[in-house]
Amino acid sequence: MKQINLAAAAKFTQDKPHRQLLYESRNLQVVSFNLEAGQELPVHCIDGEVAILILQGEGEFLGAQETPVKEGSLIILPACAPHGVKAQTRLRLVAFVAPPAE
Amino acid sequence: MKQINLAAAAKFTQDKPHRQLLYESRNLQVVSFNLEAGQELPVHCIDGEVAILILQGEGEFLGAQETPVKEGSLIILPACAPHGVKAQTRLRLVAFVAPPAE
Repeated sequence: MKQINLAAAAKFTQDKPHRQLLYESRNLQVVSFNLEAGQELPVHCIDGEVAILILQGEGEFLGAQETPVKEGSLIILPACAPHGVKAQTRLRLVAFVAPPAE
Repeated sequence: MKQINLAAAAKFTQDKPHRQLLYESRNLQVVSFNLEAGQELPVHCIDGEVAILILQGEGEFLGAQETPVKEGSLIILPACAPHGVKAQTRLRLVAFVAPPAE
């Protein structure tokens, strides 16, 4: 069992979004992203299903659809779905990635 | 893309913890649990890695180790690790389950 305090992962950097890999195994990857207001994760895609939970703040989710997100929003994306996010306020999110079954 | 508002999943029931399956695919399952103070999810194990994020409240995590958890705690468990939780206050959590690769 591994316990992580997400409050302790709430680091921000001024030049770009702060990314921190919290956990990685063959079946599951957990990554924290913290964005200052105005920062953006450009649209990209990854090879696995992703569940993204907004922990704090407000932003615009980018990709096939643009949609507002805020604390408590949970986004689920199929593998290889283009997505990104732009922060309107300080924005903290955590992504849970399930690699495709082999 | 699927968007879920976790605040809307914040339902509680008086007789037992409230469980809601939010998403399920071959690679990823997302489940919300809400417990009133004093309610308990008894120790159990599931066939998959689990990441559990405490959204609100305080409680005691049960299993091989007993450990206090609170809002912002992220617990990662290997497949089949016995675990449970007892709520000391109203407790909301969301579990991300990655089934084992076949």
